[in-house]
Amino acid sequence: MTASSSAVIDPGASAACASPPLVLDRCRVLVRPALAEAVGRLHPWVGEMAAYSLGWCEVGGAPAAGSGGKGLRQALAVLGAEAAGAPARAGVAAAVAVELVHTFSLLHDDIMDGDPTRRRRPTVWKAYGTGPAVLAGDGLFALAVETLAEAPGGAPGVRLLSGALTELVRGQADDLLFAARPWSGPERVRPAAYRAMAEGKTGALLGCAAALGAVLGGAPQSAVTALERAGRHLGVAFQVVDDMLGIWGDPAVTGKPVHGDLREGKKTFPVLAALASPGPAARRLAVLLESDGDPAEAAALVEEAGGRAAALAEARRQTAAVRAALAGAPLRAPAVDELRSLLDFLVRRDL
Amino acid sequence: MTASSSAVIDPGASAACASPPLVLDRCRVLVRPALAEAVGRLHPWVGEMAAYSLGWCEVGGAPAAGSGGKGLRQALAVLGAEAAGAPARAGVAAAVAVELVHTFSLLHDDIMDGDPTRRRRPTVWKAYGTGPAVLAGDGLFALAVETLAEAPGGAPGVRLLSGALTELVRGQADDLLFAARPWSGPERVRPAAYRAMAEGKTGALLGCAAALGAVLGGAPQSAVTALERAGRHLGVAFQVVDDMLGIWGDPAVTGKPVHGDLREGKKTFPVLAALASPGPAARRLAVLLESDGDPAEAAALVEEAGGRAAALAEARRQTAAVRAALAGAPLRAPAVDELRSLLDFLVRRDL
Repeated sequence: MTASSSAVIDPGASAACASPPLVLDRCRVLVRPALAEAVGRLHPWVGEMAAYSLGWCEVGGAPAAGSGGKGLRQALAVLGAEAAGAPARAGVAAAVAVELVHTFSLLHDDIMDGDPTRRRRPTVWKAYGTGPAVLAGDGLFALAVETLAEAPGGAPGVRLLSGALTELVRGQADDLLFAARPWSGPERVRPAAYRAMAEGKTGALLGCAAALGAVLGGAPQSAVTALERAGRHLGVAFQVVDDMLGIWGDPAVTGKPVHGDLREGKKTFPVLAALASPGPAARRLAVLLESDGDPAEAAALVEEAGGRAAALAEARRQTAAVRAALAGAPLRAPAVDELRSLLDFLVRRDL
Repeated sequence: MTASSSAVIDPGASAACASPPLVLDRCRVLVRPALAEAVGRLHPWVGEMAAYSLGWCEVGGAPAAGSGGKGLRQALAVLGAEAAGAPARAGVAAAVAVELVHTFSLLHDDIMDGDPTRRRRPTVWKAYGTGPAVLAGDGLFALAVETLAEAPGGAPGVRLLSGALTELVRGQADDLLFAARPWSGPERVRPAAYRAMAEGKTGALLGCAAALGAVLGGAPQSAVTALERAGRHLGVAFQVVDDMLGIWGDPAVTGKPVHGDLREGKKTFPVLAALASPGPAARRLAVLLESDGDPAEAAALVEEAGGRAAALAEARRQTAAVRAALAGAPLRAPAVDELRSLLDFLVRRDL
C-alpha cells in the first residue's frame, strides 16, 4: 500500500491534539514502571523470557538495544481511562494487563504458527525452546489476570478481560483451521468468516483494552460499550491493512518478504474477497492458488479480481465504524481526539 | 509402596462418613453438567480437545469408553463449600474453574515434559499436534477465569485462582530447571527446594480448590485459610507419595514402568533426600546417577541411604500438617470428615 492509497482511507484525520507517536510514548513511559514491576514478580527464568519478548533484554538477560512493540494496547487503556474523565494513572492496571495478555498471545501464536522470527529477532520458542515458551506464555497470562484482580475496582475488568481471552482463543482456532480449508468449493473461507476471525483474534483485545481503561476510570456503561466497539472495528481494520501490506507492502518498511503471505498460502482478506468475486479472474486465481503458482501472478490476479479494492473498502468501512462508535459516546477531549488520531495512525502504518 | 507401608502414614484414618470413592462420585455427578456446559462454550475444535483431555471422548469426538481423572480438585471445591455450611451447589463454579485449570495444566505440562501418553492414551499434543494443544490449554485457562469471574461473589475467588496459577507456573518452572541441575555439588537440588516446587506445582491448586469452594460458600477467612493450608500440605504429600510409587510402586497398579523415574533421571524426593544424607551410600548413589547407571541398583542405594524412609517421614509430616490445619478451623461435619478421609485416601493411592 502506498502513502497515497492509505490517505484515501480517511482523508479527514484530526490534527488538533498530540501526535500519535507522542501519545504512544507518553503512555509507554507512564505504564513501564508498573509493567516492569509486574514482570519482576514472575519466576526469574519466566521473567527473562517475558522481558525478551517485550524487547527489554537479550537471551541471558543483557539489556536489549532494540525496541519492543508500539505499545498500542497500553495506550488504548490509558486513553480509555482519560476519555472517562479519570487521570491517566487510573488506566495503568488495565494497561499492564492487556500488554501482558498481548505478549502472551504473541508468544503462543508464534509456537502455533511455527514463526521463527518476530521484530527481526528469534521468537521465544526459537530462542528458549517450545516448552519454556509455553510456560512463559502461561505465566504472562496468569500475571495479567492477577494484576487486574488485585486492582481496586478490578472485578468487572476481570470479566471483560476473560471474555476477550475466550474470543482471542476462538479467533486463533479459526485462523489455524482456515489453513486447512480449500481455496474453492463450498468449504472455502468466505470474507464474512474472515471478518469474524479477525474480530476475535485482534479486535477483542483492542476493544477490551480501551473498555478496561474506561471501566477502571469509572466510565458509564455507554462509554465502555462505545470504546469496546471502536476497538473491535479497529482490530478488523488493522488486520485487513496488515493483509494488504503482506501482499503489496514495501519489504523495506514492513520487514516482510515481497508477496510473503501469498507464497505461504495464507488466507488473507484481499485474496478471499477476490475469490468471492464473480468473473474469470477469481476462477483463474483459485486454480493458481490450488497449484501453488507464481506469487507475483497471484497478486496481480487478486488485484484484477477486485481483492485490493475490496480490502481498501473494508478498511474504510471499519474505520468509519470506529468513528461512528466514538461519535455518540460521552467521552472527554483531548483523550477522545488522541484516540481518534491514534486509530487513524494505525491503519496507515506504512507511513 | 505396599499396602502395609502406606497404612503406616496414618494409622488412625476416619471411617465415620461416606467413603472417598463415594464422595468423589457424588461430586463428579454434581459438577459434571456445569463442567460440560462450560466446555460446550469453547470453540468446537478446542472443546473437542478439552473433552478428549477430560476423558469424555476419543479423537474425532466419539464418546470415550474409558474414564477421566478422579476429579479430586472438584471434590475439594464442593467439600470446601459444604464445610463452610453452604449447600454443595455453592461450590460448583469453583469446582468447574479448578477442574478446567487442572486440565489446562496437564495439557501444557505434557508438552513441556514431552510425555507421549497419559492415562493409557496419547496426550493431546501427540493426538492433535503441539500448536493445537497449546491453544486448547489457553482456551481452558480463559474459560476457568471467565467461569469464576461470572459466578456470584466470584471476585475474591478470581484473586485466589490467579494467585494459584502464578504459583503453578513458578513450580513448573522450577521443575523444568531441576532437570538440568547436577546430582552433586553446590548446584544440586536440595529437599527443601523440592518441597517448595511441589507446593507450587501441586499444592497451590489443591489449596485453591478447597479455599475457593469455601469462599463461594461464604466461609469466614479463618476457614478459608485453613482449607488453603490443608490443600497445600496435601499437595506436597501427594507428590512425595507419587515419587515413591514412581520408584517402588507396582507397575500393574501405577501403569508406570518399574524404576521409570530413576531411568529418566527425575529429581524426585526420595532420591534427593538420599543424596542429602551423610555416608557412603549417598556418595555411591551420586556417582551411579551421574553415569546413568543401573536403575535397580540406584533404587537399592536410595533405600540404603535412607531416601525411602525420609520420603515416608515427609509424607507423614505433611499429612499431619493437613490434619492440624483442619483441626482448629470452623468447619462443618460431615464435610470436614469427608475431606479428611479423602486426604487419607489420596496418600494411599496404591490400595
